[in-house]
Amino acid sequence: MADSKPLPALNGNPVAAEALLQEVFGIVMDEAIRKGTCVSQKCHYSIKKGAAFLGLGTDSVRVVKADERGRMVPADLEQQIIMAEAEGAVPFLVSATAGTTVLGAFDPLEAIADVCQHHGLWLHVDAAWGGSVLLSQTHRHLLDGIQRADSVAWNPHKLLAAGLQCSVLLLRDTSNLLKRCHAAQATYLFQQDKFYDVALDTGDKVVQCGRHVDCLKLWLMWKAQGGQGLEQRVDRTFALARYLVEEMKKREGFELVMEPEFVNVCFWFVPPSLRGQRGSPDYQERLSKVAPVLKERMVKEGSMMIGYQPHGTRGNFFRMVVANPSLTLADMDFLLDELERLGQDL
Amino acid sequence: MADSKPLPALNGNPVAAEALLQEVFGIVMDEAIRKGTCVSQKCHYSIKKGAAFLGLGTDSVRVVKADERGRMVPADLEQQIIMAEAEGAVPFLVSATAGTTVLGAFDPLEAIADVCQHHGLWLHVDAAWGGSVLLSQTHRHLLDGIQRADSVAWNPHKLLAAGLQCSVLLLRDTSNLLKRCHAAQATYLFQQDKFYDVALDTGDKVVQCGRHVDCLKLWLMWKAQGGQGLEQRVDRTFALARYLVEEMKKREGFELVMEPEFVNVCFWFVPPSLRGQRGSPDYQERLSKVAPVLKERMVKEGSMMIGYQPHGTRGNFFRMVVANPSLTLADMDFLLDELERLGQDL
Repeated sequence: MADSKPLPALNGNPVAAEALLQEVFGIVMDEAIRKGTCVSQKCHYSIKKGAAFLGLGTDSVRVVKADERGRMVPADLEQQIIMAEAEGAVPFLVSATAGTTVLGAFDPLEAIADVCQHHGLWLHVDAAWGGSVLLSQTHRHLLDGIQRADSVAWNPHKLLAAGLQCSVLLLRDTSNLLKRCHAAQATYLFQQDKFYDVALDTGDKVVQCGRHVDCLKLWLMWKAQGGQGLEQRVDRTFALARYLVEEMKKREGFELVMEPEFVNVCFWFVPPSLRGQRGSPDYQERLSKVAPVLKERMVKEGSMMIGYQPHGTRGNFFRMVVANPSLTLADMDFLLDELERLGQDL
Repeated sequence: MADSKPLPALNGNPVAAEALLQEVFGIVMDEAIRKGTCVSQKCHYSIKKGAAFLGLGTDSVRVVKADERGRMVPADLEQQIIMAEAEGAVPFLVSATAGTTVLGAFDPLEAIADVCQHHGLWLHVDAAWGGSVLLSQTHRHLLDGIQRADSVAWNPHKLLAAGLQCSVLLLRDTSNLLKRCHAAQATYLFQQDKFYDVALDTGDKVVQCGRHVDCLKLWLMWKAQGGQGLEQRVDRTFALARYLVEEMKKREGFELVMEPEFVNVCFWFVPPSLRGQRGSPDYQERLSKVAPVLKERMVKEGSMMIGYQPHGTRGNFFRMVVANPSLTLADMDFLLDELERLGQDL
C-alpha cells in the first residue's frame, strides 16, 4: 500500500487534474514552479486537454516511453522524473493507463507504483477502458498493482455496456478530499439546516451543478446482473476476441498488428492485390489506404462500423473492439466475411 | 452589434472560462497579469468553481453590485473595471445573468453590453435558466440586449423541461473558435482521411471524449412541439406563477419576498403564531426557522419538494419555481393548502 503523503498543490485544486485526465500516461508538473522547461514530445489526447483547461499548459505534461506493446516503461518514468527535477520542475502526478485506447495495453502498475512511492508522487490510473476487467477472476491479473493507486478513473459505459455516460472516480483518500477541493458552499443551493445528515448531499463535490444521476444505472445494472453476471460479460468479450484472432490466423487476408492481451483486436486487411507484396517499396503506403476505403464502403452499405487509425510508425489499421457482450461467434464470422467481400476488388 | 475584438487570452484557452461559468455575474481577470489584487467579496457559486478549475484562482473574480431585485448595476460594473485596471489587472470577461437562480432576475443587458463594448470586454450571458424566455413573444423583452453577447449559455433542461442534461453554448464567433481552442487532433480518434467533410465531426471541439448526444433530445422536442409549442410551455409557466402570486395575496399566511418578474415565486410562509408579530425583535430569526421545518414535513409526507434558502440579509424563504408546464392551477391551490396544513401548529 502506498504511504500517506502530502497532497500535491494544483492552484488549490489537487483533484481537478486527475478528474479530467483520461486515456493517457505521463507526468504532470506544476507550471507555476516550472522554470522554462519545454517538452516537445507529442502528448496524448486527454491529458493535453486537461492540462490546458486547468491552466497548467500543455508543456507541463511529459510523455514517458512505451514498449512495443504500448506499455509504459518504468525505467523511463524514473528517468523523466529525475530530469524534470534537475530542471527545477516539480512533478506531482503520474497517470498510468489500464487498457489503452488503440492497443488495449495495461501499464505495469506495480513497478510504476514503486517509482511513485519512491518519489512521493500521486499515482492516477486511467482504467476508463480496462477497469471493468477487475470483475473477472480470470483476467484481473492485468490490473495487478491498481490497489496502490491514489486515484482511479473507470467508465462502466465502456466494457460493461452501461449507457453513456457512466464515469467513476475512485479515491484512496478518506478525508473528504473532493469536498475540501471543490465545495463552494453556495448557501442558496446547499442548505445546512436539514433534517438529515447533509454529508449525504454530494452535489457540491463535483464540477457541475445540475447533472444526470449517472450512478443509478450502474447500481441498477449491478443489482440486476450481480457480480457474476458482470464477470460473464467481461469474460465473454475476451472469448469473442480470442475467437476472432484465431479465425483471422486461418485467413490469408488478415494480418494482426500484434497478439492482443485485451479485447482490442488490431489488424490489417490485406486485399488480394497486396498479398505477397510485403517486400515492395510502396507496400506500407498502399496498405494504409485500404482501411479508409473499406470503412467508407461498410458505412455506405450500413453493415458495420469498425474504427481504424495510424499508430506510431504503423499505417492505418483496423481496431475491432469486442466490447458488446451480446455479440456472437456468428458476428465475428460475418465481420471477416464482410471485409473479404468489401475488399475483394482491391 | 458588438465590434469585432481580439480574443482574450486565458492560458491558450479563451473559451474555457465561459463554458464553465454559470449562474453568476462578475468580471474575470487573468491572474497571470494580476499583481497582488485580492477581492474579498463573496463571489457566486459556479464562477468561483470555474475560476478555480481553470487555474485562474478565485481571487481573479470580482463581484459587481446588484440592485434590490438582484440585477447587476452597470455603473458599478464600470467602476469595478476601472478599479481593476488601476490595480494593474487585465479584465477580459463579464458574465451577466438572464434569470438568476433564486430571484429569477434579468440583468440589464443593453447597458452591460455598452460597458463591455467601451472597454473591449467579452460579454458572456448566463441564460441557463432564463434563455428559454426568448421563445415567448410576450416575455422575450426580458432578454433585450442578449443579441450583443459574445457567448450565451442556455439549458433547455430547465424551463423547457428537456431531460437532464441538455446544455447549449452559443457563440457569436464564426471562425471555428472552439476547434481552434480545444482540438487536440488525436489521430487515433479523429481521422482526417474520411469520405465525408470531417468538419462535421464535432467531437474534438468539446471538453469530454465519449459523451451523450445531448442535443438530440432538444432537436426531437423542437420538431415535435414546434416553436409555438415551446412558446406555450414558457407562457404557461408565467401564467401559473402569476396565478400562484395572486392566490398568495389572498391568504394571510403568505408573504412575498418581492413581486416576481419571472417564474421564481419567492415567499415566506408565516405560521399562525407569527402573524401580526412582524415588529417583535426575534421575528426574523423565528421566521427563518419555519421553512426547514416545513420542508422536513413535506418530504416525510411525500407531498411536495419546494426549495428554500437564505439570500443576502433575508432569512430562509421558499422558492417555488414554476418550471413544469404540466402543472395546473389545482396544483397551485394544493401547494398553498398543503403549506397551511403542514404549518398550522407552528
